[in-house]
Amino acid sequence: MHCALVSRTLDLRSYFGKALDGIAEHIQAVDHPADDHAEQVQMALAWHPPADAFASYPNLKAVCTIGAGADNVLACPSLPPHVDVVRVVDPAQAEMMAGFILWHVIWHQRRFASFMAQQKAKIWKRLDQRRPQTVSVALLGYGQIGQRVAEELTALGFPVLAWSRTQKPLPANLRGFHGRDGLLTMLAETEVLVNLLPLTPETRGILNRDAFAAMRPGGYLIQVGRGEHLVEADLLAALQSGQLSGASLDVFAVEPLPQDHVFWHHPQVFMTPHDACDISVDALAATLMATATAVQAGERPPHAVDRQRGY
Amino acid sequence: MHCALVSRTLDLRSYFGKALDGIAEHIQAVDHPADDHAEQVQMALAWHPPADAFASYPNLKAVCTIGAGADNVLACPSLPPHVDVVRVVDPAQAEMMAGFILWHVIWHQRRFASFMAQQKAKIWKRLDQRRPQTVSVALLGYGQIGQRVAEELTALGFPVLAWSRTQKPLPANLRGFHGRDGLLTMLAETEVLVNLLPLTPETRGILNRDAFAAMRPGGYLIQVGRGEHLVEADLLAALQSGQLSGASLDVFAVEPLPQDHVFWHHPQVFMTPHDACDISVDALAATLMATATAVQAGERPPHAVDRQRGY
Repeated sequence: MHCALVSRTLDLRSYFGKALDGIAEHIQAVDHPADDHAEQVQMALAWHPPADAFASYPNLKAVCTIGAGADNVLACPSLPPHVDVVRVVDPAQAEMMAGFILWHVIWHQRRFASFMAQQKAKIWKRLDQRRPQTVSVALLGYGQIGQRVAEELTALGFPVLAWSRTQKPLPANLRGFHGRDGLLTMLAETEVLVNLLPLTPETRGILNRDAFAAMRPGGYLIQVGRGEHLVEADLLAALQSGQLSGASLDVFAVEPLPQDHVFWHHPQVFMTPHDACDISVDALAATLMATATAVQAGERPPHAVDRQRGY
Repeated sequence: MHCALVSRTLDLRSYFGKALDGIAEHIQAVDHPADDHAEQVQMALAWHPPADAFASYPNLKAVCTIGAGADNVLACPSLPPHVDVVRVVDPAQAEMMAGFILWHVIWHQRRFASFMAQQKAKIWKRLDQRRPQTVSVALLGYGQIGQRVAEELTALGFPVLAWSRTQKPLPANLRGFHGRDGLLTMLAETEVLVNLLPLTPETRGILNRDAFAAMRPGGYLIQVGRGEHLVEADLLAALQSGQLSGASLDVFAVEPLPQDHVFWHHPQVFMTPHDACDISVDALAATLMATATAVQAGERPPHAVDRQRGY
């Protein structure tokens, strides 16, 4: 099986060499444009592919992406309608994300930024200690990652609310919301808002002035979805007014973030460079193998997204 | 029942007013020196009492302290040998401590200090993502708080080692060590060292050059025990040499930390002002009530420490 490596932003071979080496006996990775093997290529590994990328491969059956979200592949104009798009479902990634999000929630809860400022100013002053029970955390998106995040947050005493497009069964210690009305109802009780949603036409711009205005005053945003979920001007206004006390941003509409962007030096913004959590080598290798096996058998690969729905 | 409030460092009445108000019907709090009620005082609430404090109360039966460690009361020269010293055992405090420690472990694991430095310098650069499985965390002390900390760390994927003075039964996913030999064996596998020990003659100065030298190079110290556990010069040397990459310190030999102390502006030290976690109002009120009840019945109060052992 030949697998084309297709990205205009990442060198996938150097990034995921370990995974590709481990399965080289079964899957031969070829760099795009793989002109010498164009007809043999039946699958691809892709991240932000060039617009015309998939036109080169007449026998393409499936495209695996390298993250939990498939939007970057689905948006490619040359993706033929019959091709399956596969995302990586990785418990190790969910675990890393849970730790990352927990850290930002506690950063807000325990006012660690204030402690750092006090140390710098040589001020010895204890701060109000807020019990986790008083800091409600709402998850936008309750898939495999959201479920793991919720488990860890509830174990530490935080009340967790979860919003999804459609109603889902939830453990007894979570409160679930769905649909547009459910979103506003939930936000009225939300102090920390965590965005884990897939990017779809319905979720684009969902982090906007209406959402921030609906939250508890002094709330906090943790944005680990996609940059396009956020209306940046609305976030800046909410930070300015104090409606939000701060934001942790891992994803941006333009990445790398342009040098002249205000986020770089905004005192209420904690930035990370789209680095919350990679998928693991093992999970990527397993996904590629399962996809190749399915393609060879003429079957639908596991974790292929609903292309209509977008995730 | 009269209860004397005794501290040379804290205004206990303003700090714990809510707890005292809630039980005022049963326990009358009087400020030390309570000359008018000296003979009626049968119990005290104390934190770093003056050296001669307890000589004033001929009928004193029990002293409650306001934290998990009783060393501050046990060290008082005027504490009569027959008086019980009671510490507060508080699940809410253990929960807060678990969140606090988890935060510092992930601060080290995910290199958030580097992310902050990069943001300040407008550098977009992803960092190596270390899985929690590769970051071993050792707990010095495995009492009620240590157990809760271990639960949360293991749930997030960190390997946890636990050291206690004597052998204790442990859950299957923890590795236990005890005694002086066990300490060095454990440290050889330790990246993050968390000090939760009570302060006793045996544990004073336990965080010293030998301990740091035994740890994995580039390790990290989280110090939430007592300031006297740490040999400060040895920590500074270990940070200087790179044997330790950093330290989070919540407790200090002298508090408040003197203005000219090097910790204030040390780039590898994250300081908090003895603020990791207070006991809760509810737990303090419950402890005072249980102590009063036991004193009235002529019994030993719950959670009285072994004065010989020191905790």
